[in-house]
Amino acid sequence: MNSFNPSDPDFRNRVLSSFNNQGVMNTIGARIITIAPGKMEIDFAFHESLTQQHGYIHAGILTTVVDSACGYAAYTLMPSDSEVLTIEYKVNFISPAKGELFKTIGKVVKPGRNITVCAGDVIAIDQGREKTVATMLTTMMMVKKHM
Amino acid sequence: MNSFNPSDPDFRNRVLSSFNNQGVMNTIGARIITIAPGKMEIDFAFHESLTQQHGYIHAGILTTVVDSACGYAAYTLMPSDSEVLTIEYKVNFISPAKGELFKTIGKVVKPGRNITVCAGDVIAIDQGREKTVATMLTTMMMVKKHM
Amino acid sequence: MNSFNPSDPDFRNRVLSSFNNQGVMNTIGARIITIAPGKMEIDFAFHESLTQQHGYIHAGILTTVVDSACGYAAYTLMPSDSEVLTIEYKVNFISPAKGELFKTIGKVVKPGRNITVCAGDVIAIDQGREKTVATMLTTMMMVKKHM
Amino acid sequence: MNSFNPSDPDFRNRVLSSFNNQGVMNTIGARIITIAPGKMEIDFAFHESLTQQHGYIHAGILTTVVDSACGYAAYTLMPSDSEVLTIEYKVNFISPAKGELFKTIGKVVKPGRNITVCAGDVIAIDQGREKTVATMLTTMMMVKKHM
Repeated sequence: MNSFNPSDPDFRNRVLSSFNNQGVMNTIGARIITIAPGKMEIDFAFHESLTQQHGYIHAGILTTVVDSACGYAAYTLMPSDSEVLTIEYKVNFISPAKGELFKTIGKVVKPGRNITVCAGDVIAIDQGREKTVATMLTTMMMVKKHM
Repeated sequence: MNSFNPSDPDFRNRVLSSFNNQGVMNTIGARIITIAPGKMEIDFAFHESLTQQHGYIHAGILTTVVDSACGYAAYTLMPSDSEVLTIEYKVNFISPAKGELFKTIGKVVKPGRNITVCAGDVIAIDQGREKTVATMLTTMMMVKKHM
Repeated sequence: MNSFNPSDPDFRNRVLSSFNNQGVMNTIGARIITIAPGKMEIDFAFHESLTQQHGYIHAGILTTVVDSACGYAAYTLMPSDSEVLTIEYKVNFISPAKGELFKTIGKVVKPGRNITVCAGDVIAIDQGREKTVATMLTTMMMVKKHM
Repeated sequence: MNSFNPSDPDFRNRVLSSFNNQGVMNTIGARIITIAPGKMEIDFAFHESLTQQHGYIHAGILTTVVDSACGYAAYTLMPSDSEVLTIEYKVNFISPAKGELFKTIGKVVKPGRNITVCAGDVIAIDQGREKTVATMLTTMMMVKKHM
């Protein structure tokens, strides 16, 4: 993985503050595990309120959390007066999202002034065994904060 | 739009029954508006528990609902002993998801024995005005039900 | 489809001039059929030099031409001192690319100052019958021309 | 990277034979560098006949070659009486495709009986320096050969 040098030394507080404003992260029970330059990890536990028709986590909920992980991975490298927006993403679901805990990891693939490309993974922990269940490729955009 | 002829005359009950098993649809407050051959519409209202950092609906929640709309659009055309799975999707977010109500529409682009391609849209209704906020292109798979 | 109002009245010449600089369009034998605000159509004929292992047109060649159609559809709406770049695309291949002629159509879904979202289709004409063989969803970026 | 065990010991010849039937690989001047279980590398040199409007390799040509790399990576793990088809792909273009040589690498992320997910990269070699210029996430399908 690449090593990145954030321009804003206070990037962790900036990410935390934004994350805490995402009402949906609270609804899902998502918790930040790691904030590092160009990398973010967010976990959440299985809950019936998040399931699809077979009782596994809905693809869209996996996407919600790994999208935030990728967005904040990008945001760690953006300037202090910026906001991050998801332009688009593509996700492949490669195994059923069966498990008791779900780790989502977002990483910057290519940072840019306006456009940052990230990759994300969702790993299910099922009776202690890890399995990648989804993989994301996404484009994030930096926008200047409106004061 | 294409016109489709479902092989299973009971497709509406099959879709309804599967939808009602998706715990996350209840969490989001999603409601079925239309079930038609190759088409499905699901709406949900704004709620703070579904938001990202700017107070709009999180991209992943839009995705969750339009994924279900696309999946069930595909499922209307599948045989009675089948299940539907999302293989992958790609979503572009084209305007902020600002509004009081969100309509998601899933349509079959190309049905197939195993693989069905669908397109979806999310339309925000903001003070009565409609605006497309997201557009999805997705691949669904038919799998035989395990008895 | 939306109706668009180009800011640059000379957009057709700008598109033509850029198209003529794409060496690969000549290699493929691609021809412009339509240049309109927010819309572009490019056709090409079957040739063995463009095939995959089953003798049909390679997915990547369909992509090459419909990418140019989408990029130039976006470019019609950009200012005179701009360039257009493909940030990313996603393509579904929904039928074998069998035919004697291939029409690619690019349309702007959502124009923006920096980012424009487009949708594209590839239609094969096989013994006179039309069939959609691929569909694209793509993100284009405007960049200022370096003088 | 995962380690894979091909069911068909003759997978190299099967890939070679299919590759040699792709007319477009000859047009591009593409050469196989590596065929390994779940992995394929194909290179090609810069040529003006493959360019877009700025004189770099057209995004669609990068896609054509890395699509073949991903498809054949998947094909190495498929049974002897199978064919491989690209269902869909998504590609991000992360740097201008400037260089004298282009390496495309396709790897299996998750093999399956019918559906195989692959990831691909395109690396430009520009005056001897390597740079990733595009990254792909794609879904391949196994189909039984028609005898």
